[in-house]
Amino acid sequence: MPIYNFSAGPARLPKEVMEKAQSEFCNYQNSGSGILELSHRGKYFAPVMERAEQNVRELMNISDDYAVCFVQGGASMQFAMVPMNLLNGGTADYVDTGVWSAKAAKEAKLFGNVNLAASSKESKYDHIPAQAEWKLTPGAAYMHITSNNTVAGSQYRVLPKAPAGVPLIADMSSDIMSRVFDVNDFGLIYAGAQKNLGPSGVALVIIRRDLLERTSDRVPTMLKYSTYSENASMFNTPPTFAVYMLALVTDHFKTMGGIAEIEKLNDAKAAKLYGYLDSTDFFRTPVAKADRSHMNVVFRTPSDELDAKFVKEATAAGLTDLKGHRLVGGCRASIYNAMPMAGVDALIDFMKEFVRLNG
Amino acid sequence: MPIYNFSAGPARLPKEVMEKAQSEFCNYQNSGSGILELSHRGKYFAPVMERAEQNVRELMNISDDYAVCFVQGGASMQFAMVPMNLLNGGTADYVDTGVWSAKAAKEAKLFGNVNLAASSKESKYDHIPAQAEWKLTPGAAYMHITSNNTVAGSQYRVLPKAPAGVPLIADMSSDIMSRVFDVNDFGLIYAGAQKNLGPSGVALVIIRRDLLERTSDRVPTMLKYSTYSENASMFNTPPTFAVYMLALVTDHFKTMGGIAEIEKLNDAKAAKLYGYLDSTDFFRTPVAKADRSHMNVVFRTPSDELDAKFVKEATAAGLTDLKGHRLVGGCRASIYNAMPMAGVDALIDFMKEFVRLNG
Repeated sequence: MPIYNFSAGPARLPKEVMEKAQSEFCNYQNSGSGILELSHRGKYFAPVMERAEQNVRELMNISDDYAVCFVQGGASMQFAMVPMNLLNGGTADYVDTGVWSAKAAKEAKLFGNVNLAASSKESKYDHIPAQAEWKLTPGAAYMHITSNNTVAGSQYRVLPKAPAGVPLIADMSSDIMSRVFDVNDFGLIYAGAQKNLGPSGVALVIIRRDLLERTSDRVPTMLKYSTYSENASMFNTPPTFAVYMLALVTDHFKTMGGIAEIEKLNDAKAAKLYGYLDSTDFFRTPVAKADRSHMNVVFRTPSDELDAKFVKEATAAGLTDLKGHRLVGGCRASIYNAMPMAGVDALIDFMKEFVRLNG
Repeated sequence: MPIYNFSAGPARLPKEVMEKAQSEFCNYQNSGSGILELSHRGKYFAPVMERAEQNVRELMNISDDYAVCFVQGGASMQFAMVPMNLLNGGTADYVDTGVWSAKAAKEAKLFGNVNLAASSKESKYDHIPAQAEWKLTPGAAYMHITSNNTVAGSQYRVLPKAPAGVPLIADMSSDIMSRVFDVNDFGLIYAGAQKNLGPSGVALVIIRRDLLERTSDRVPTMLKYSTYSENASMFNTPPTFAVYMLALVTDHFKTMGGIAEIEKLNDAKAAKLYGYLDSTDFFRTPVAKADRSHMNVVFRTPSDELDAKFVKEATAAGLTDLKGHRLVGGCRASIYNAMPMAGVDALIDFMKEFVRLNG
């Protein structure tokens, strides 16, 4: 029985990547050592780090106006690093579309003023507030969004633009490299790797170089973006194995035809799954149709008891990690880049049978 | 030909551990997924995190007065987190025994006063300053040492004690779990994993719980030690694969008989290697005999040219990564816990032959 893991992250990685990493785990390129046993400054790892950066640049079409960095601590560390480097006592606009947006705004308050430009919290984050209604600060230090909301299951299907002169900053942890967009619209993009890009333990940060100048000398070395941009993310020992996996995953994305091809697959997977969910009254989807995430499909059966039964029986059928986030309950199928259409088909087949027996 | 990798870090891991990790890389405990593809809060990873902490507690005999945490960013991030949490504008004593000590002191200056209690910088860090000569601050917020100096090749062979009431803080990145000592003598111990404990990407932090109270509310969530102690290092997604490897490595240490047995092996390896180096005039060891590191054995041939030849020919003979740190040059053999005596024997045999041909 094939097993499909629908975890929201750490999440399934491409099968080809996992098998390649396993095959060379103990002996990387006949070095006699595993890649994780080798010096980060040696002849084996240094090209891996370069390839990881180059792959990201190619796949996302990133110009040299931007630095591409690999940082530890996940997106949660970025919640602090962004304002620590860029706020400097000014005012930043945050759009609150889920628990992660709220956490990002909370950290920013330690370094300046936070204007909550809009929030869908009162309706349990069931939609993305319309951009026309956002209350923006003239001359804000930056504007911060969360492009995809892993817990609520919503996503900016059209990415917003910031007013002229205001850097747009996005937490793209759960939809980076899932679709094509123009990096030039952003001042800074960050993303924990553990959904689409690799294992946990490394976050990708893409920052427009002019913003590097904003950081005060009072910021500790390891928390300054310039430390990463000036040292090719090797000021200290990087998380070598996580970067290596990210290099393999992005190699794989290139063989798939790049992000445009991946986006087509992601759109097709989401269309099929939402299409089925909409075709039955048994399942409910709480998110506004226009804002549905193509990465995290959140749904509920008619009761909490049936939710639990669904998750349990799906697991027994090889469809794992379908439980909703502990903060909201219900069910959630995360269908990141590495989830094949066959996994979505298997899930829909299981859902149909579950409805037949319990509907 | 067996290959022995003498890298200073990331470094060789126990062969048994690497093989076990490889065998279950794509399918952890018949879950159908690799451990790095599984949710950190799921039934597979959560026990791994618990076991990692429990192993550290058992091996180092750590009481419940201490929290054991896993933090990203390496020891370099700890250089900032220590003063950010514990200095609060006070004065801390730093003993400068190498480039990493100096980097730690530099970060602390952002958060309070730093008193350089002693330094061996003027003699190129060739010894550990005698404790009787340290100029300590009465009522210091803490006293900071680097227990082993990876670049210089020196080590506190007897760990110092701090004055009563002053927490002793140690960067033990390159000798943690290499020898027995009493954790109760310390306020805080930190160590990047990538020498003795696992791959890069996770640092172990052991902190006396009363010190957790010192942290200001102005410290960002991800930089507060209490965030890790209160959430079993799972406030956000931890670096799951690095923690998993650390759990396997510490499992292995337990099967070896614990740290006391490992220390005997480490002492025997160091005695044999230094014994050979002392037996010939060809090699020079710059570090004072009493302060020689049992982890990083630094040495030189009669010339820079012969150093380079030695490193190159050793590599061809399967003895890799013997080049000294880029800041100091020369040669360095790192013989952490996972280096077997056979590796040291092979190195000495190669040295003898090199002397015969070039001496």
